[in-house]
Amino acid sequence: MTWLDAVKWDADGLIPAIAQDYKTGRILMMAWMNREALELTAKEQRAIYFSRSRQKLWRKGEESGHVQKLHELRLDCDADVIVMMVEQLGGIACHTGRESCFYRVFENNDWVTVDPVLKDPKDIY
Amino acid sequence: MTWLDAVKWDADGLIPAIAQDYKTGRILMMAWMNREALELTAKEQRAIYFSRSRQKLWRKGEESGHVQKLHELRLDCDADVIVMMVEQLGGIACHTGRESCFYRVFENNDWVTVDPVLKDPKDIY
Repeated sequence: MTWLDAVKWDADGLIPAIAQDYKTGRILMMAWMNREALELTAKEQRAIYFSRSRQKLWRKGEESGHVQKLHELRLDCDADVIVMMVEQLGGIACHTGRESCFYRVFENNDWVTVDPVLKDPKDIY
Repeated sequence: MTWLDAVKWDADGLIPAIAQDYKTGRILMMAWMNREALELTAKEQRAIYFSRSRQKLWRKGEESGHVQKLHELRLDCDADVIVMMVEQLGGIACHTGRESCFYRVFENNDWVTVDPVLKDPKDIY
Protein backbone atom coordinates (compact mmCIF):
# COMPACT_ATOMS: atom_id res chain seq x y z
CA MET A 1 0.00 0.00 0.00
CA THR A 2 1.44 3.30 -1.08
CA TRP A 3 0.53 6.78 0.14
CA LEU A 4 -1.55 7.16 -3.03
CA ASP A 5 -3.66 4.13 -2.08
CA ALA A 6 -4.51 5.80 1.23
CA VAL A 7 -6.41 8.50 -0.67
CA LYS A 8 -10.15 8.00 -1.12
CA TRP A 9 -10.69 8.92 -4.74
CA ASP A 10 -14.26 9.80 -5.72
CA ALA A 11 -16.35 8.00 -8.34
CA ASP A 12 -14.45 9.87 -11.07
CA GLY A 13 -11.08 9.03 -9.54
CA LEU A 14 -10.58 12.58 -8.28
CA ILE A 15 -9.93 14.43 -5.02
CA PRO A 16 -10.45 18.15 -4.29
CA ALA A 17 -7.19 20.02 -3.68
CA ILE A 18 -7.13 23.38 -1.91
CA ALA A 19 -4.18 25.73 -2.49
CA GLN A 20 -3.35 28.11 0.34
CA ASP A 21 -0.65 30.80 0.41
CA TYR A 22 2.11 29.45 2.65
CA LYS A 23 2.85 32.87 4.14
CA THR A 24 -0.50 34.65 4.49
CA GLY A 25 -2.79 31.61 4.74
CA ARG A 26 -5.07 33.06 2.09
CA ILE A 27 -6.98 30.40 0.18
CA LEU A 28 -6.10 30.87 -3.47
CA MET A 29 -8.19 28.27 -5.26
CA MET A 30 -9.63 24.79 -5.20
CA ALA A 31 -9.31 22.38 -8.09
CA TRP A 32 -9.18 18.63 -8.59
CA MET A 33 -6.45 16.00 -8.83
CA ASN A 34 -6.42 12.47 -10.12
CA ARG A 35 -3.87 9.93 -8.97
CA GLU A 36 -1.28 10.96 -11.53
CA ALA A 37 -1.70 14.66 -10.71
CA LEU A 38 -1.17 14.08 -7.00
CA GLU A 39 1.84 11.87 -7.60
CA LEU A 40 3.41 14.47 -9.90
CA THR A 41 2.59 17.29 -7.48
CA ALA A 42 4.67 15.54 -4.80
CA LYS A 43 7.40 14.58 -7.24
CA GLU A 44 7.80 17.94 -8.95
CA GLN A 45 6.97 20.00 -5.85
CA ARG A 46 4.47 22.16 -7.69
CA ALA A 47 0.68 22.04 -7.97
CA ILE A 48 -0.50 19.83 -10.82
CA TYR A 49 -4.24 19.43 -11.16
CA PHE A 50 -6.54 17.42 -13.38
CA SER A 51 -8.77 19.64 -15.49
CA ARG A 52 -12.29 18.24 -15.49
CA SER A 53 -13.35 20.38 -18.44
CA ARG A 54 -10.35 19.44 -20.58
CA GLN A 55 -9.99 15.95 -19.07
CA LYS A 56 -6.23 16.17 -18.85
CA LEU A 57 -3.39 17.12 -16.52
CA TRP A 58 -3.14 20.82 -15.79
CA ARG A 59 0.29 21.97 -14.74
CA LYS A 60 -0.76 25.17 -12.99
CA GLY A 61 1.22 28.01 -14.52
CA GLU A 62 2.11 26.18 -17.73
CA GLU A 63 0.68 29.06 -19.80
CA SER A 64 0.57 31.95 -17.35
CA GLY A 65 3.83 31.30 -15.55
CA HIS A 66 1.82 31.43 -12.33
CA VAL A 67 3.29 28.24 -10.94
CA GLN A 68 2.41 27.15 -7.42
CA LYS A 69 5.53 25.91 -5.64
CA LEU A 70 4.69 23.28 -3.05
CA HIS A 71 5.69 23.86 0.56
CA GLU A 72 3.47 21.37 2.34
CA LEU A 73 0.93 18.72 1.44
CA ARG A 74 -1.78 17.58 3.84
CA LEU A 75 -4.61 15.03 3.81
CA ASP A 76 -7.77 15.23 5.89
CA CYS A 77 -9.26 12.72 8.34
CA ASP A 78 -11.52 11.13 5.71
CA ALA A 79 -8.64 11.03 3.19
CA ASP A 80 -10.82 12.73 0.62
CA VAL A 81 -9.50 16.32 0.58
CA ILE A 82 -5.97 17.68 0.00
CA VAL A 83 -4.56 20.98 1.28
CA MET A 84 -1.40 22.41 -0.22
CA MET A 85 0.64 25.24 1.25
CA VAL A 86 2.08 26.94 -1.82
CA GLU A 87 4.16 29.86 -2.94
CA GLN A 88 2.15 31.53 -5.71
CA LEU A 89 4.61 32.80 -8.33
CA GLY A 90 3.48 36.11 -9.79
CA GLY A 91 1.07 36.58 -6.89
CA ILE A 92 -1.88 35.66 -9.10
CA ALA A 93 -3.79 32.38 -8.83
CA CYS A 94 -7.02 33.29 -10.61
CA HIS A 95 -7.60 33.32 -14.37
CA THR A 96 -9.31 36.70 -13.88
CA GLY A 97 -5.95 38.21 -12.92
CA ARG A 98 -6.69 38.31 -9.19
CA GLU A 99 -4.64 36.97 -6.31
CA SER A 100 -7.32 34.49 -5.29
CA CYS A 101 -10.32 32.92 -7.01
CA PHE A 102 -12.36 33.81 -3.93
CA TYR A 103 -12.80 37.50 -4.72
CA ARG A 104 -16.56 37.68 -4.16
CA VAL A 105 -17.99 38.26 -0.70
CA PHE A 106 -21.56 37.69 0.39
CA GLU A 107 -23.06 41.06 1.35
CA ASN A 108 -26.71 42.19 1.46
CA ASN A 109 -27.90 39.00 -0.20
CA ASP A 110 -25.53 39.28 -3.12
CA TRP A 111 -22.01 38.29 -4.18
CA VAL A 112 -19.91 41.43 -4.28
CA THR A 113 -16.50 41.60 -5.98
CA VAL A 114 -14.09 43.08 -3.47
CA ASP A 115 -10.61 42.20 -4.78
CA PRO A 116 -8.78 44.06 -7.54
CA VAL A 117 -7.58 42.68 -10.86
CA LEU A 118 -3.80 42.79 -10.56
CA LYS A 119 -3.10 42.01 -14.19
CA ASP A 120 -5.27 42.01 -17.31
CA PRO A 121 -5.98 38.38 -18.24
CA LYS A 122 -5.20 39.31 -21.87
CA ASP A 123 -1.62 39.93 -20.74
CA ILE A 124 -1.47 36.62 -18.89
CA TYR A 125 -2.65 34.12 -21.48
CA MET B 1 -32.21 35.59 -9.84
CA THR B 2 -31.13 35.26 -6.24
CA TRP B 3 -27.61 34.85 -4.89
CA LEU B 4 -28.37 31.13 -4.52
CA ASP B 5 -29.06 30.84 -8.25
CA ALA B 6 -25.59 32.26 -8.97
CA VAL B 7 -24.07 29.14 -7.44
CA LYS B 8 -23.13 26.31 -9.79
CA TRP B 9 -24.41 23.25 -7.96
CA ASP B 10 -22.90 19.94 -9.05
CA ALA B 11 -24.85 16.98 -10.44
CA ASP B 12 -25.93 16.08 -6.91
CA GLY B 13 -26.99 19.65 -6.13
CA LEU B 14 -23.99 20.23 -3.90
CA ILE B 15 -21.04 22.63 -3.57
CA PRO B 16 -17.81 22.11 -1.60
CA ALA B 17 -17.47 24.48 1.37
CA ILE B 18 -14.11 25.16 3.00
CA ALA B 19 -14.01 26.39 6.60
CA GLN B 20 -11.03 28.52 7.57
CA ASP B 21 -10.22 29.99 10.98
CA TYR B 22 -10.96 33.71 10.75
CA LYS B 23 -8.01 34.64 12.94
CA THR B 24 -5.21 32.23 12.05
CA GLY B 25 -6.25 31.34 8.51
CA ARG B 26 -5.85 27.66 9.26
CA ILE B 27 -8.05 25.47 7.08
CA LEU B 28 -10.22 23.47 9.45
CA MET B 29 -12.24 21.22 7.17
CA MET B 30 -14.04 20.88 3.87
CA ALA B 31 -17.56 19.52 3.59
CA TRP B 32 -20.54 19.92 1.26
CA MET B 33 -23.62 22.12 1.14
CA ASN B 34 -26.85 21.88 -0.75
CA ARG B 35 -28.98 24.90 -1.51
CA GLU B 36 -30.83 24.75 1.79
CA ALA B 37 -27.62 24.37 3.78
CA LEU B 38 -26.03 27.41 2.15
CA GLU B 39 -29.16 29.49 2.64
CA LEU B 40 -29.34 28.53 6.32
CA THR B 41 -25.61 29.15 6.79
CA ALA B 42 -26.12 32.75 5.69
CA LYS B 43 -29.32 33.13 7.63
CA GLU B 44 -28.14 31.64 10.92
CA GLN B 45 -24.55 32.86 10.58
CA ARG B 46 -23.11 29.44 11.37
CA ALA B 47 -21.81 26.63 9.16
CA ILE B 48 -24.54 24.22 8.13
CA TYR B 49 -23.50 21.44 5.78
CA PHE B 50 -25.26 18.65 3.95
CA SER B 51 -24.04 15.25 5.06
CA ARG B 52 -23.56 13.06 2.00
CA SER B 53 -23.39 9.87 4.09
CA ARG B 54 -26.53 10.65 6.09
CA GLN B 55 -28.23 12.56 3.25
CA LYS B 56 -29.49 15.30 5.53
CA LEU B 57 -28.60 18.72 6.91
CA TRP B 58 -25.70 18.75 9.31
CA ARG B 59 -25.67 21.67 11.71
CA LYS B 60 -21.99 21.59 12.58
CA GLY B 61 -21.73 21.40 16.36
CA GLU B 62 -25.24 20.12 16.94
CA GLU B 63 -23.87 17.18 18.93
CA SER B 64 -20.38 18.28 19.86
CA GLY B 65 -21.09 21.93 20.60
CA HIS B 66 -18.29 22.74 18.16
CA VAL B 67 -20.30 25.29 16.24
CA GLN B 68 -18.62 27.32 13.50
CA LYS B 69 -19.71 30.95 13.73
CA LEU B 70 -19.68 32.63 10.36
CA HIS B 71 -17.57 35.74 9.85
CA GLU B 72 -17.35 35.87 6.07
CA LEU B 73 -18.68 33.92 3.11
CA ARG B 74 -16.96 33.91 -0.28
CA LEU B 75 -17.60 32.35 -3.68
CA ASP B 76 -14.95 31.56 -6.28
CA CYS B 77 -14.66 32.66 -9.91
CA ASP B 78 -16.38 29.55 -11.26
CA ALA B 79 -19.09 29.83 -8.59
CA ASP B 80 -18.52 26.22 -7.61
CA VAL B 81 -16.60 26.47 -4.33
CA ILE B 82 -17.45 28.29 -1.06
CA VAL B 83 -14.96 29.58 1.52
CA MET B 84 -16.13 30.50 5.00
CA MET B 85 -14.13 32.42 7.55
CA VAL B 86 -15.34 31.01 10.85
CA GLU B 87 -14.81 31.16 14.56
CA GLN B 88 -14.46 27.56 15.69
CA LEU B 89 -16.11 27.24 19.09
CA GLY B 90 -14.20 24.85 21.35
CA GLY B 91 -11.17 25.09 19.04
CA ILE B 92 -11.91 21.65 17.59
CA ALA B 93 -13.26 21.09 14.08
CA CYS B 94 -12.36 17.43 13.55
CA HIS B 95 -14.29 14.42 14.79
CA THR B 96 -10.96 12.97 15.92
CA GLY B 97 -10.72 15.73 18.54
CA ARG B 98 -8.15 17.77 16.63
CA GLU B 99 -8.25 21.44 15.71
CA SER B 100 -8.26 20.72 11.99
CA CYS B 101 -9.15 17.71 9.85
CA PHE B 102 -5.88 18.26 7.98
CA TYR B 103 -3.61 16.77 10.62
CA ARG B 104 -1.60 14.50 8.32
CA VAL B 105 1.44 15.81 6.44
CA PHE B 106 3.13 14.16 3.49
CA GLU B 107 6.66 13.19 4.55
CA ASN B 108 8.99 10.53 3.15
CA ASN B 109 6.29 9.10 0.90
CA ASP B 110 3.80 8.68 3.73
CA TRP B 111 1.04 10.58 5.54
CA VAL B 112 2.33 11.41 8.99
CA THR B 113 0.06 12.58 11.82
CA VAL B 114 1.57 15.75 13.22
CA ASP B 115 -1.24 17.42 15.20
CA PRO B 116 -2.30 16.45 18.73
CA VAL B 117 -5.71 15.23 19.83
CA LEU B 118 -7.02 18.06 22.02
CA LYS B 119 -9.98 16.14 23.40
CA ASP B 120 -10.92 12.47 23.41
CA PRO B 121 -13.71 11.95 20.86
CA LYS B 122 -15.51 9.83 23.48
CA ASP B 123 -15.89 13.00 25.54
CA ILE B 124 -17.16 14.98 22.56
CA TYR B 125 -19.97 12.82 21.21
